[in-house]
Parts: sequence; C-alpha cells; structure tokens
Amino acid sequence: MARGTSGEQTGTMAQPLAGVRVVDLTRILSGPFCSMLLGDLGADVIKVEGREGDEVRRQGAIIEGMSWYFASFNRNKRSITLDLRSDEGKAVLHRLVAGADVLVENFRPGVLDKLGLGTAERERLYPRLVVASVNGYGSTGPYAERPAFDFITQAMSGFMAVNGTPETGPLRCGPPITDLVAGLYAAFGVLAALRVRDRDGRGQAVESSLMMGMVSMLAYLSASQLATGTPPPVTGNDHPIASPYGLFQAADGGVAVAPSTQAVLRRFLSEIGLEHLLAEPRFATNADRVATRSELNALIDEAMRGETQETWIARLNAAGVPCGRVQTLAEMVEDPQVAAQEMVLDIPHPGHGTVRMTGFPVKLSGTPCRVERPAPDLGAHTDDVLAEAGYAPEEIAALRESGVV
Amino acid sequence: MARGTSGEQTGTMAQPLAGVRVVDLTRILSGPFCSMLLGDLGADVIKVEGREGDEVRRQGAIIEGMSWYFASFNRNKRSITLDLRSDEGKAVLHRLVAGADVLVENFRPGVLDKLGLGTAERERLYPRLVVASVNGYGSTGPYAERPAFDFITQAMSGFMAVNGTPETGPLRCGPPITDLVAGLYAAFGVLAALRVRDRDGRGQAVESSLMMGMVSMLAYLSASQLATGTPPPVTGNDHPIASPYGLFQAADGGVAVAPSTQAVLRRFLSEIGLEHLLAEPRFATNADRVATRSELNALIDEAMRGETQETWIARLNAAGVPCGRVQTLAEMVEDPQVAAQEMVLDIPHPGHGTVRMTGFPVKLSGTPCRVERPAPDLGAHTDDVLAEAGYAPEEIAALRESGVV
Repeated sequence: MARGTSGEQTGTMAQPLAGVRVVDLTRILSGPFCSMLLGDLGADVIKVEGREGDEVRRQGAIIEGMSWYFASFNRNKRSITLDLRSDEGKAVLHRLVAGADVLVENFRPGVLDKLGLGTAERERLYPRLVVASVNGYGSTGPYAERPAFDFITQAMSGFMAVNGTPETGPLRCGPPITDLVAGLYAAFGVLAALRVRDRDGRGQAVESSLMMGMVSMLAYLSASQLATGTPPPVTGNDHPIASPYGLFQAADGGVAVAPSTQAVLRRFLSEIGLEHLLAEPRFATNADRVATRSELNALIDEAMRGETQETWIARLNAAGVPCGRVQTLAEMVEDPQVAAQEMVLDIPHPGHGTVRMTGFPVKLSGTPCRVERPAPDLGAHTDDVLAEAGYAPEEIAALRESGVV
Repeated sequence: MARGTSGEQTGTMAQPLAGVRVVDLTRILSGPFCSMLLGDLGADVIKVEGREGDEVRRQGAIIEGMSWYFASFNRNKRSITLDLRSDEGKAVLHRLVAGADVLVENFRPGVLDKLGLGTAERERLYPRLVVASVNGYGSTGPYAERPAFDFITQAMSGFMAVNGTPETGPLRCGPPITDLVAGLYAAFGVLAALRVRDRDGRGQAVESSLMMGMVSMLAYLSASQLATGTPPPVTGNDHPIASPYGLFQAADGGVAVAPSTQAVLRRFLSEIGLEHLLAEPRFATNADRVATRSELNALIDEAMRGETQETWIARLNAAGVPCGRVQTLAEMVEDPQVAAQEMVLDIPHPGHGTVRMTGFPVKLSGTPCRVERPAPDLGAHTDDVLAEAGYAPEEIAALRESGVV
C-alpha cells in the first residue's frame, strides 16, 4: 500500500495549487469531491460546517468513530464550524472569503445571495474571487429551483435509458456517477478560472450540474440520437453494432473480450482455435456476425471453457486482444495493477486508526497529488482558521460562547 | 438552440487557454475528449492524423459526409496529416512540439519513446512541455502493456460489479464512461501542470487511465468495501439502504423519487396522501421500510397512479422532493432545461450541413466555452500549420510529394 503520494518525484516543486485558499461550503458528495480534487493538488481547503457537520460524517461504514466514506472525500481539508444563519456567522464567512481565492458551494441556487454573496456583491467586494457552484440542473432554466439527487439526474439525463437490458429497462448505476462527474467538471472549471484570474486579475463564476455533466458523457449514443432522431436501444453487455463482443465463459468464470477491429478479432479467434470461422460466410463480416451472434457466442464459449480466466487473459492480452475479468470490488482493491498505481491509500487518522481510501486518478510526474492531512474532525481547525483571519483569542472565545462557531 | 456560446458575457476577456498550443496525437475517444475540453477553453489544438484519419471519422451516423460522433468530439481542432512512421514525419512532429505548450496522446505506453519523445528526450529538448497521456491501466505496473477498451476497464474497475440487478449480474453501462472520465481527468491534470509551468517554468508528464479513473468514482461503494471487506450487492434501481426510493408508477409512466431525508419523505408521503403511514410501526423507520419495501412500494404506486408524470413531478418538486422521469435520449435532447442550459448546439460545418452536438458542461461566466471552429476535414490545416511552424511553401510541397503529410 502506498503512503499517500504518487509519482516518482516529491517535493522538489510546490504543488499546483500551493498558496491557493478555498472556502468550501459544500456537503454530501458533488461539492466535496470538487474541493477534494483541489486539495489533492495542494490547495488549502477550509470546510465550513454547521454544528451538526456534513451529513456524510454519519453515513457509510464507521470505524473508530470515523466514517470511511467521509474520510475518503474530505482528505486535505480543514474544518471550521460556523452558523451561517446568524449575522455574526455571515460576517465571519465574509472575512474568510476576503482572504480566499476560491469559494465552492453546492447549495440550491439562491442560497449564496442570502449569505450576501450574490453575483453583484461578489463582483463589488471580491472581484478576484473564483466561485464554483455545483448544482442539480444549472442555475438558470425551468428546473433551476428543483432539488436534485444522483438517481433523479441519472434518470433525467438519459443515462438510465442507455443502461440496463431489454428485460430490466432503464437502470440506475450503483455509483453516484452524476455527483462525481459534476464535481470533477467543477474542479476543472476552477483551474481554468484561476488561470484567467492570474492573467487578468478577475474572478468569475464557474458552474457545473449533475444533469448536464452526465448529458455530456453520452458520447456516440447522444450523437446517434441527434443525427438520426432515434433513441438507441438498451443492450446490456452486448455491443449494439459489434460482434463478437462481451462476456465469454472460461473454466472458472467470465472473460470480457472486446475485439476492436477485424485484425484484433482474427488474433482473438486464432488464440482460441476458431480462426477458420472467418472463412465461413455466416461469420465473415461484422454485419454477418451481428446476425449470428448467439451461434458465434456459443462457439466461443465452447472453445474457451477448457482454460482458466487467468490463462485466457494472459494469452489474449499478449496477443493484443483487449480482455479482462469482471472484478468484484474485493478483487479490484486487491488487484496488483491497482496497487502499482497506488490507488488504495492507507492514511493514518490520529484517534481513528488507519483509513483505507482510493488514491489519485491523475498522476503528475513533477508535482504529484498528496494526502497532506487526513479528513478533519468536525471543527478541528476553527481556532486556527479564525486566528489566521485576524480574530484575536478573546474574539474567538466570544464567537464560541455565542454559538456562532 | 444555442449558437455555440454559453454564459452571459462573451469576448470581453480572452478564454482561459488562449495562446496555448496543443499538439494532439490522440484518436478514438478518451484522448480526443481531453483535447476537446482544452479546445473548448480556447486552446489551439492541432490534431495530428495518419493518412486514413481518426477511425471515428468513419463511425456512427454519417450525414453529408460527416460523422456526427466525430464532429462532436473534435470541435475546436485543426487537422494535419502526418506519417509518424517516417523519419521526415517524426522531424515535422518535433518541430510542431517545439512550438507547443502541451502534447496529448493516448497511445499504448512506449510509443512516445519511438517518436523520440521519451521522458529523457522531452526533459532535454522541451523542458517546458506538458505531456498528457491517457491510457488503459497506467504506464507502470503489470498491466501497463495491455490493450484497453472501455468495456474491459468497466469490468476490471469494479464498476460492472455494482451495475445491474441480481438477475442480470454485472452489467456494462451503455456510454463509454471510462473513456470520458479518463479524458476529463487528463484535461484537469493539464490545467494543473500548466499552472506549475507558468509559475516555475517546468513542464511535466500528466497521466490518467480508463481503469483508475473509474476506480476513483465508486464513492461509498469502494469506501464500504475497504471498510468492511464485503463487496456491496447489485441492487438495480433500489437503494441498498434507503426506502422508499426508486421508480413509482404514475398514470402515464414512471416517476423517479429519492426522498433524501425523513423530512423529505414526510413531504413526499403527504403530497401523495400517505403521510399516515409514518405512524404505523411497520413503516416508522428507514430500517422498517427497507424490510417492508415491496408492500410500501405497492401502496405508493397505488397512490400515484391517478395522476400523470407531469403533475406529480411538478407537485413533488414544488414540495422539495427530488423527483423526475426516466427520459429517453429523444426526450432529453428536447428537454426545456437542456435547451436553457444550451446543452444542444447547432454548429454549421461548411460542406457538411449543420451538426447538432452536446454543449458545454462547465459554465464560466466571464470566459465561456465556445465553438470557434467545427471539427476539421482530414488534413484541412496541414499547410497552415506547417507554415506557422516555419516551413516554406516549397518544403511543404516536398513533404506532400513524398507522402509525409
């Protein structure tokens, strides 16, 4: 297991977002994923929480008092508690924002205005501030005010209509993919906006949404819809227009095979002893093979069932045929490639044991992502952050006394 | 339909990547998505293609000689043909790279070395260059040399194991999600590396992979696996630990409802006339309702079947209950919110009619994404790009004569 760094060099250059301060008003998942990505790049992320803290602190598997789900999405953040409903709390927030480069929020549209951080006020008070918003549907348009949730935006975006089988009908996928995609887009937008600010001295608003992020990820399916006016069918594990393609049966389990071209297909069939099939008219072209898919699949299953998954995967990969197995999450986290890529990190959380979490999907050779600090206990950095914002010890005590922090 | 801009202001500030030149060696999907995202932010993207061009030019629905799939992933790019197997072609490539800020590629690991662009050579010749690689499994580790494909990395990442129903078993999702996520991560990494380069004058290598990108998107499912050692089950449209949650039946179709908290659940049940159920012991707590899910779902279906989707969606959203309908892609592209968010663009392609494509998922208020140019015909900018790189007309003619370009 890796120690929380990634890449060969460490520390010779400062991280990309070293010196960038982020005030983070987000909770649950989409916004926290955005601010986590910024923290992984070295930003100083100040997570602002209400007295009860982010709900995710109480969700998922909790070990030694720490939700591992929370821990994995809130590394590299500091936590301050702040009552944003009180005037004093709003004043503290403004002082934090005055010292920040980026504000991230995933409230419903309109909440920032109530905090005195509407567009006009921001442009007047904090012209260099980059404000990133992650929301359900975008802040303009007929659905702007709707509450959102991953499942609902999977449904609305068209993603569910192209996930599933003819038997299941439209299907939600397990991971909350719309939250994560929107959070990643927002972090991407923040980097773009910081570049403009560094160059021109002007901040701006960045926005991504669960629904539109997913709309942008439908690839050839949306292209086909727009070109033909006809919705693509749900096809399960079959490819709509390629054959053979799918899960085939080795002695001890399935092997996923995707022969991407006729040349790759020839190598595949050659490896499993079926190259002669390509000489038969009913299997000659892809169109022929789509028509005879079930017959061909049965022949392939028969040819492959004499050897194990491992044998086939080694042989086919060596022959340049994209293939692999369907891994459970248990298998994935033990996968040697996942280890080599340092995608499972063991992060010590003082007082909460060691938390295992997924690593960094972006590798930067010179300035790698790092876990500089584990996810914070609720309010653990309230005093530090207030002091950095210029509050005197007695002022901090007074804020604490009155329940503002 | 929008005209290819997004946001209120246009053109007052230069785009984030104005003046950034990208040499783009990518093809198919993951890499082209990365370079498209950079182009949407204003980079000058030079797509380098072999004589046959990117395979996607011949894929998907083709109208007036243009693949709409290709068009939608290659906007904001210029195209130059170049034979990278010839020494002269490699020399041209090096001249392009010498004038570039970013190189993007999605070859298998090792191909860059053959082009004279291995790590050591790059650091010596082009120390300010940012090199982004998108590959299947990462460039180190036991699977580094394996050919990859979306379906295979959906399988290997664990995604398929948490997609599907108990009946279907592990299921691939329709969209090539691992390609798109990896491309987005790579573009995010490029922006981070450009920031370092602008500050420190040093380029670096950026890498993302189809498998590891997806591994990073399993959220509470991977957190649960790591915390408990037990793989989560596939649950279809049911939420593993929340009830009620799912698709319910209105008079004319399904309504997806996700009551995220007990308070929201109360509002939901109140709207459909079932608030009294919460007083009954068998429906009192979430745990009770998970145990009685099928009974509760039947009661909800019965309560909702008297009104239409549209009525319920309006009423429930107004009550703050996240809900929506499962939209086909046909419905999605006609959705008024999609229109308001300018997520379907009509882009004129001279000689190929008007191509409709998905818009920009990231909104930047001051420097919005734009379509400055439609996807290029193969090699359309060869002469321009070579001239900009300092080639004289007779040199360009000679390169053309010898089949290098």
